[in-house]
Amino acid sequence: MKKVDLREKVLSANEKIAIANRERFADTGTLVLNLVSSPGSGKTSLVEETVKILKDRYRIYVVTGDIMTENDARRIARHGVEAVQISTGGACHLDAKMVDEKLVKIGSDYDLIIVENVGNLVCPASFDLGEDLKVLLVAVGEGDDKPVKYPPMVRASGVLVINKLDLVPYTDSKPEAIEQNALKINPDLEVFSVSCKTGQGLDRWIEWLTSRLKTKKAAHPGS
Amino acid sequence: MKKVDLREKVLSANEKIAIANRERFADTGTLVLNLVSSPGSGKTSLVEETVKILKDRYRIYVVTGDIMTENDARRIARHGVEAVQISTGGACHLDAKMVDEKLVKIGSDYDLIIVENVGNLVCPASFDLGEDLKVLLVAVGEGDDKPVKYPPMVRASGVLVINKLDLVPYTDSKPEAIEQNALKINPDLEVFSVSCKTGQGLDRWIEWLTSRLKTKKAAHPGS
Repeated sequence: MKKVDLREKVLSANEKIAIANRERFADTGTLVLNLVSSPGSGKTSLVEETVKILKDRYRIYVVTGDIMTENDARRIARHGVEAVQISTGGACHLDAKMVDEKLVKIGSDYDLIIVENVGNLVCPASFDLGEDLKVLLVAVGEGDDKPVKYPPMVRASGVLVINKLDLVPYTDSKPEAIEQNALKINPDLEVFSVSCKTGQGLDRWIEWLTSRLKTKKAAHPGS
Repeated sequence: MKKVDLREKVLSANEKIAIANRERFADTGTLVLNLVSSPGSGKTSLVEETVKILKDRYRIYVVTGDIMTENDARRIARHGVEAVQISTGGACHLDAKMVDEKLVKIGSDYDLIIVENVGNLVCPASFDLGEDLKVLLVAVGEGDDKPVKYPPMVRASGVLVINKLDLVPYTDSKPEAIEQNALKINPDLEVFSVSCKTGQGLDRWIEWLTSRLKTKKAAHPGS
């Protein structure tokens, strides 16, 4: 029983900070995405392709989480956007406090903050960071039934990006099966199928993201 | 502070059951492997290929862990070996108690027990199940720096299987880079490079496994 109580305490402390983060992002009209997936589904590649296209039009800040190394922040910073790494030192997810601590320093001068979570299809589902949306990535070749095996993450997400379309000819994977399995768990998902390697499908993703950026900004005309 | 204490309590309770599991497996000369990886690296495929080759020579039992669904146990049982699913219902790892509860029923009549853990490169590293070895899978295309990003799991493992060699021509991935990154963290790793799809490299894996099965059995001539 004690274990459950403690878990609830940790989650409720997290929730308070997440609410404060969300209010701050609302005040500044900043759209915040929380990218979640297995390790290796291509979160960093999606961030790279996205910032390459949008960096001249929008002020973008990227927070990347990993158990260890600053590799991802370095990969992203090469494209000329600000990127900071959170090395969790063992923790299997980012929490609202870690994100808050990084963001206190940067002020509010951003249109888009992309948080790339620790590669983990389980634990990050429980931790609200104050984001507008969780964006779940599933890659071709990971197993088309992944969404039904990890339903809490699918339920917690607003968007599904099916990545690595370029590998379809070399695997038994069917992107439409991944999509159908995900929609069974969460029919409200917005779904995009892309290849970060070839660029296929990224235009639809960017169009949707641009429209979300405009909506968020329009709701806060003073920002 | 309380959080740390509780984590230690949970781990130490787990450790007691793991020790009992390990003693039981020693008494019966049963080799136990704990397969760990990201979701989608091919744990179930490796189990399938392994049982296809060894099932007529050894008594094999398979335990598969997932948040939800019994898909994996069904996939494995098709090959004519006994397989049981543990649906963790949300937990991000298997623990020694879950494994113990499944194994109490089966008795001791097995040469090889393969436990396929929940797809997660973080949390299962902390939970000893009483296995002889953790076998870590990393797939081609997941990102060659995965081992340095998830060092606790690499340190906890005795074997690294680099899977999906068939995808090398279609990705920027270099299996030798995955191997080098892993050996930097844990120089004692036994490394195998395979494709469960084409069968490439499986002969060396099977040869090693057969030798471990003989060694374990020889240490317990009464079993």
